[in-house]
Amino acid sequence: MRRFIIDISTEGNGEIVNLSPQIAEQLRTERGEGLVHIFVNGSTAAVTTLEFEPGLVKHDLPNLLQRLIPDDMPYQHEATWNDDNGHSHLRSTVLGTGICIPFGSGKLLTGEWQQVALIDFDTRPRRRKVICTVVV
Amino acid sequence: MRRFIIDISTEGNGEIVNLSPQIAEQLRTERGEGLVHIFVNGSTAAVTTLEFEPGLVKHDLPNLLQRLIPDDMPYQHEATWNDDNGHSHLRSTVLGTGICIPFGSGKLLTGEWQQVALIDFDTRPRRRKVICTVVV
Amino acid sequence: MRRFIIDISTEGNGEIVNLSPQIAEQLRTERGEGLVHIFVNGSTAAVTTLEFEPGLVKHDLPNLLQRLIPDDMPYQHEATWNDDNGHSHLRSTVLGTGICIPFGSGKLLTGEWQQVALIDFDTRPRRRKVICTVVV
Repeated sequence: MRRFIIDISTEGNGEIVNLSPQIAEQLRTERGEGLVHIFVNGSTAAVTTLEFEPGLVKHDLPNLLQRLIPDDMPYQHEATWNDDNGHSHLRSTVLGTGICIPFGSGKLLTGEWQQVALIDFDTRPRRRKVICTVVV
Repeated sequence: MRRFIIDISTEGNGEIVNLSPQIAEQLRTERGEGLVHIFVNGSTAAVTTLEFEPGLVKHDLPNLLQRLIPDDMPYQHEATWNDDNGHSHLRSTVLGTGICIPFGSGKLLTGEWQQVALIDFDTRPRRRKVICTVVV
Repeated sequence: MRRFIIDISTEGNGEIVNLSPQIAEQLRTERGEGLVHIFVNGSTAAVTTLEFEPGLVKHDLPNLLQRLIPDDMPYQHEATWNDDNGHSHLRSTVLGTGICIPFGSGKLLTGEWQQVALIDFDTRPRRRKVICTVVV
């Protein structure tokens, strides 16, 4: 087992960052087979997989999340803490903050159009620590 | 690899239980780095992460789930089995029944406001076995 | 660590395949305890757990997904790529493409009514490679 951290500054507000290039670079020298676990520590962000193309990233996924978990509904979290990120918490809980991806011969075994992405739902710029754990 | 079980009695009906204290206690003596996998065996419950505060736990997350996956719609599952927990199954499938969390130096590497939670969606009190696996 | 592949031909369009029998067969000879990670490589499919019974599989889960992420909305992904599977991508991102399941003494430690399922959301028949990794 070994661990590496991906340090990312985001603008928040649903910014989606493609993590696959940095993960792939770290796995390039791994021999054999294994799993890499990718986790964002925080309760207003998510890690998932998607095809990282502008139609989905800039339009379809943000529209879906706004339709299902709007940022402009009244949330008790916001009333309690005088905050504005109730939707950020809920989106994080629904999408999840971590995933495992298999690799082999130094390559992520994701599909041709499948990338690992961090989504930062918080309502302000954040510095995020993505904790990656390689299990062989 | 080692395994421990968290035995929990819930009231069902969406009760949310903070698992972080019991998991943290188990990891306290772990040296080095690893992953802990937390899994509820059952098809009407979920394991996820969230900020365990009353606004989200008592109001916002239950309201969201009731809005997206209502407990009072007609479900074929209920017609077939003369049951009332169709929504419980669907909520479990959407949120997922397991997650991995990284740890290091005896501590969960979750965010400051991020806890691991069990949600029991079944429509009656249940005894739940949460299966935790420590990978080092 | 060892790996096995489940090769599956699906009809797409939301076909749900019960993977538990094939996974269970592979784990039958495992001594001791471990985790099996099940991952579909692709951005239009998902792996989750559910009770594999016709009410949920043929009716309730498809109805829920059609209600939340309809296949007949305009998606920018489809406009960009002259494609028709925008909803397939979004459903995959929301449900997730992989899970870990604990096992012990040669058996999956899933609940009595809980099965591991592949859902293929693409809009045409596909051959899917489900990558399973056994960690002991």
